[in-house]
Amino acid sequence: MKKAVVLYSGGLDSTTCMAIARQQGFVPCALSFNYGQRHAVELQKAREYAPLVGAAEHLIIDMDMRLVGGSALTANIEVPKDAPEGGGIPVTYVPARNTIFLSVALGWAEVLGAGDIFIGVNALDYSGYPDCRPEYIRAFQELANLATKAGVEGHGYRIQAPLISLTKGQIIRRGLELGVDYRLTHSCYDPTPMGLSCGHCDSCRLRLKGFAEINKEDPLPYAD
Amino acid sequence: MKKAVVLYSGGLDSTTCMAIARQQGFVPCALSFNYGQRHAVELQKAREYAPLVGAAEHLIIDMDMRLVGGSALTANIEVPKDAPEGGGIPVTYVPARNTIFLSVALGWAEVLGAGDIFIGVNALDYSGYPDCRPEYIRAFQELANLATKAGVEGHGYRIQAPLISLTKGQIIRRGLELGVDYRLTHSCYDPTPMGLSCGHCDSCRLRLKGFAEINKEDPLPYAD
Repeated sequence: MKKAVVLYSGGLDSTTCMAIARQQGFVPCALSFNYGQRHAVELQKAREYAPLVGAAEHLIIDMDMRLVGGSALTANIEVPKDAPEGGGIPVTYVPARNTIFLSVALGWAEVLGAGDIFIGVNALDYSGYPDCRPEYIRAFQELANLATKAGVEGHGYRIQAPLISLTKGQIIRRGLELGVDYRLTHSCYDPTPMGLSCGHCDSCRLRLKGFAEINKEDPLPYAD
Repeated sequence: MKKAVVLYSGGLDSTTCMAIARQQGFVPCALSFNYGQRHAVELQKAREYAPLVGAAEHLIIDMDMRLVGGSALTANIEVPKDAPEGGGIPVTYVPARNTIFLSVALGWAEVLGAGDIFIGVNALDYSGYPDCRPEYIRAFQELANLATKAGVEGHGYRIQAPLISLTKGQIIRRGLELGVDYRLTHSCYDPTPMGLSCGHCDSCRLRLKGFAEINKEDPLPYAD
């Protein structure tokens, strides 16, 4: 069975991606980043959940993106609550984050002999991030095949973004069909000290909207 | 004056790039990586030399690429000495290294408000690395302009690789014209414990060939 690298945050989207990679017959190798995210609980959850949701390996790369700065997720900027939609690119945008993550995934894929990299971006409920659009994913795939030994001499790379045209509700429905247990996922940007989801940040609101869209109840506990 | 991010290793090429960025009127902001390189002296030299060769800022990002594996520069693979030329992509190739470095440079450039990123790759004496070719640089620039807030909404990015079509001798001549002091550069992949260059690794041999090409003497001390 072939390996695939799955960018994995422990969240709803990347966990659904992992299930899709398995359905396609891949052995998922999960890749996470300790990048100075304010929601460090995310990484604890990812470490705990990765083997439970089917990752054969789990690599966590330390890279302190707080030094680069510029985002509410890593710097001392207030995470917006109940922000209106359609307000352009939000302050939670981390400069070049997906590009950095995909680049490291590409390096690991080359070492593993994996030709497929899964990333759980989606362009509909994408919170306005430019690096979640289909043209961005296509451009990265082209780059990957120019950048690497395996791209130039070997099997080539495919960047798979299977959620890209799905709504949050459709993602959850797809995951439920594949047997994903959404209790083993974590989404909140700003959880309570006890690890409860806030229910008000962009990420929580998208998640709750997704469950509501398909008339399902989110199995996670919330702070209020 | 506008800032530019310069990928900076403390080596001959990136130091020449820094001088070219200054000549173009930019304030160079140097970016280096502590990525588990076996030649850790490289980073010490870079830290020492950066302000001396004109960097206004110097950001060093820690990211342990040994976890990703796959290269003689980071893993326990013997660095080849006096290897024949034209033998394909060498074992010192680090998977996706330039892609990872450029991605972080892109993130920092966005934060700094810089539109230009300088990288000292060259396609002639490039040791066979796929991520040193012009088509690779063009693909990264396209990606950069799709990936980021500033690429989509703002000033856009230019990836400058001013050495790409120069021989090592031409690079050195260019640098000397711009006043680069090549004593303040370091190239060796496998220096002695005292920090002397070995004179036999790919990097030393390219450097020595460059000085020989223009009938200049390399001002660095060598082990033999």
